[in-house]
Amino acid sequence: MAQRFLIELLSELKAEKGEAALERIAEEIVRLLAEDEQTEVRRFLESLELADVASVIEELPQGDDLTAIRLLSLHDQAELIGHFRASAQVSVAERLGKWELVSLMGAMSHDERADLFKQLDETAQEMLLPALSKAEREDLRRLSAHEEWTVGSVMTSDYAVLAPELTSTDAITALRRQALDAETIYYAYIIGESRELLGVVSLRDLLTAPPRQRVADIMDTEPVLVHVNDPQEAAARRVARYDLLALPVLDEDDRLVGIVTADDAMDVSEEEVTEDFHKGSTIQRFDMSVADATITKLYRARIFWLVLLVFGNIFSGAGIAYFEETIAAHLSLLFFLPLLIASGGNAGTQSATLMVRALATGDVRLRDFGRLLSREVAIAVALGVTMAAAVWLIGIWRGGIEVAIVVAIAMITIVLLGALIGMSLPFIFAILEKDPAAASGPLVTSLADVLGVIIYFTIASVLLI
Amino acid sequence: MAQRFLIELLSELKAEKGEAALERIAEEIVRLLAEDEQTEVRRFLESLELADVASVIEELPQGDDLTAIRLLSLHDQAELIGHFRASAQVSVAERLGKWELVSLMGAMSHDERADLFKQLDETAQEMLLPALSKAEREDLRRLSAHEEWTVGSVMTSDYAVLAPELTSTDAITALRRQALDAETIYYAYIIGESRELLGVVSLRDLLTAPPRQRVADIMDTEPVLVHVNDPQEAAARRVARYDLLALPVLDEDDRLVGIVTADDAMDVSEEEVTEDFHKGSTIQRFDMSVADATITKLYRARIFWLVLLVFGNIFSGAGIAYFEETIAAHLSLLFFLPLLIASGGNAGTQSATLMVRALATGDVRLRDFGRLLSREVAIAVALGVTMAAAVWLIGIWRGGIEVAIVVAIAMITIVLLGALIGMSLPFIFAILEKDPAAASGPLVTSLADVLGVIIYFTIASVLLI
Repeated sequence: MAQRFLIELLSELKAEKGEAALERIAEEIVRLLAEDEQTEVRRFLESLELADVASVIEELPQGDDLTAIRLLSLHDQAELIGHFRASAQVSVAERLGKWELVSLMGAMSHDERADLFKQLDETAQEMLLPALSKAEREDLRRLSAHEEWTVGSVMTSDYAVLAPELTSTDAITALRRQALDAETIYYAYIIGESRELLGVVSLRDLLTAPPRQRVADIMDTEPVLVHVNDPQEAAARRVARYDLLALPVLDEDDRLVGIVTADDAMDVSEEEVTEDFHKGSTIQRFDMSVADATITKLYRARIFWLVLLVFGNIFSGAGIAYFEETIAAHLSLLFFLPLLIASGGNAGTQSATLMVRALATGDVRLRDFGRLLSREVAIAVALGVTMAAAVWLIGIWRGGIEVAIVVAIAMITIVLLGALIGMSLPFIFAILEKDPAAASGPLVTSLADVLGVIIYFTIASVLLI
Repeated sequence: MAQRFLIELLSELKAEKGEAALERIAEEIVRLLAEDEQTEVRRFLESLELADVASVIEELPQGDDLTAIRLLSLHDQAELIGHFRASAQVSVAERLGKWELVSLMGAMSHDERADLFKQLDETAQEMLLPALSKAEREDLRRLSAHEEWTVGSVMTSDYAVLAPELTSTDAITALRRQALDAETIYYAYIIGESRELLGVVSLRDLLTAPPRQRVADIMDTEPVLVHVNDPQEAAARRVARYDLLALPVLDEDDRLVGIVTADDAMDVSEEEVTEDFHKGSTIQRFDMSVADATITKLYRARIFWLVLLVFGNIFSGAGIAYFEETIAAHLSLLFFLPLLIASGGNAGTQSATLMVRALATGDVRLRDFGRLLSREVAIAVALGVTMAAAVWLIGIWRGGIEVAIVVAIAMITIVLLGALIGMSLPFIFAILEKDPAAASGPLVTSLADVLGVIIYFTIASVLLI
């Protein structure tokens, strides 16, 4: 009965209207646990994907979550904890018994283990270290040593290794033995005596090779690779560009120290995209969950740009103050002020967004600038004329034909300049080897605002007085 | 000699300062081809990854590009063409001989073949169809029939299939035979008589299973799957959430019709992210390369929102017009107008960006709203007070203590309201089952602008007159 009810909720969950279903599944599990129906709960959890089990368990009240986790096999527990959010991981780890945590960490994939370890407080870390095996301890130290945002911080050390002199048949047997521990066995790495990378072979190539052919003759000796101190997005970009399942990571002495798997590369891309979103919106680098962040952290990430833009906008204010006489003589001009300066910023932001993203995906390259610039002029004039036409009648109604002419000319000029600034800034940033994403929205808007004020009132003071 | 020079350029290319290197490699290849050093060129191209070969060949002048392509094996050519941009694909396909194109398409992966076919003009399509095999023709028709943005438009039909009664050893032999044609052999699909999906098995599970165990006993009978008419982002999200290498696609009658591979899912994510970027920036759905788009296409994608925002800003203008008397009496207030209305928009855009992205990645859920709202109030007040302090002295200098007080109170109120609008809109959109990304930037800015004008001059007219 309960089982059937849960299965129905599960299909809702899978249909991605998941949130309400999640809460109801959690309630149902709490009820079943209270009635000691542990077998029922286990059977249900085992019918789910572990990523979904993680979401469900995160919903459970403290105590019940540990009970539910303990119903799973150690292997599933180890994978499960990798799916938790950072805060849930730590909360669960802190409440598990010491030896329970030690055996769980022994079963976790190496990169997730290191990530968890780094988040524990120092007392917990010091309590854990002596309980781990020497190999685990050293692996943890190595993986935790890398700086955030580097390839080292996202790689894992549980990769499959083969000797170059093995035949393809023996290599497959060797991979079979490594299947339990390695993050992937679809790629295997061939290393020499001092761990230098000799080549990479895919399981697919091993399977299709003649049975007696040696690994050394099948392997790719010039594989795409990445270095441990490269920025993490270099790994993500290469995995995507070359359609890889994993990418070998070398240290400064070209020894193999880890791999970045495709799913970890996808997580990196997601982080980088989030960063690009934030950059375009004046939020400073901010390496944590928005849901978990403290007020202070969020304040810090936001205040710098806001204050900077306040001072940027003082120039617009100064522009207005400079034209006070013109304004006092024609107060009806003020009606069009917000509209004109916003239009320059809007058109500019559109151009900037298109360019930032196209440069990021490689759709547009630096040398396309000239061609795109002349196209942008044509588009911006067309946009400006349309927008001028849209306000023409309102111009006549509010201020007469003269004001309408001023507004129309100002609109076309402001939209054109805004669009050209918006399209050029990302290129300029890219040429200066800055991230084009920093050139979007707010910077463009501020520049367009100042220019808008000056252009509008200059045209007005020439034509009206 | 030439070879060594090319290899040096290659390492530059790999170091991701690629663009200049690309051009020089292309020049070098043109020179070598002019001197009839085809073997040299072939050897160099073969030492590159195909994704890089594609970039190099796209740089070559017409004629030389075909010569270079023809130096590669048919298998490499087929993979190569999938790496070209759409415009380059079509240009090359139109210049190849009919039978050359037919054999190339025969060797391409099914999804890339369908994508290429869809882009050819009708004459070319009609010329090609009779030359293809019946199976290819039907496959093309099936894959081309799906609407854009659906899972069907990104799936491929060259997946590996196994019978449920095979032993694991026989299954591996069967996969070996399918390795040349299948897009991946790391997952295999077990289907029944009417192509209904019975289960999925990974090569890893087959390798680690006892040799005589039957596929039916190893396979996952409740795999994560997707339907052919689901939106393509459903496939991308599931691949990422469940860390899959491929995802089976079923039709309305639950028959297996294709798979979406992880690398195609990554491409979809990239498209979707681009869409989110555009949505946040008033660009309408726009399904092509920015570099290749015509003026008309770009104009259409941009004009709707720009004109809409013009009319939105008329409300701000009307607000100003309503307070004309207050302004005429205190012209110094105008100095602070751009600064105050921009600040509300800036703070609001920050909040919106944080929420849109956090909702998209699942970091924040709908039910977190209440908790986040009270946190946002605290942050916004802190931000507003800091920003008010920043302009305090300027307020005194430009307008005296009274104007400074008006500006400070207005700043705090405007920033608070802007931030609350910016954080609430994405949630409201999500509850209404609209895409939260549409709630960002411009909408928030326009609302904040109008409110800013009204709040500022209301406070001024109360306190100053």
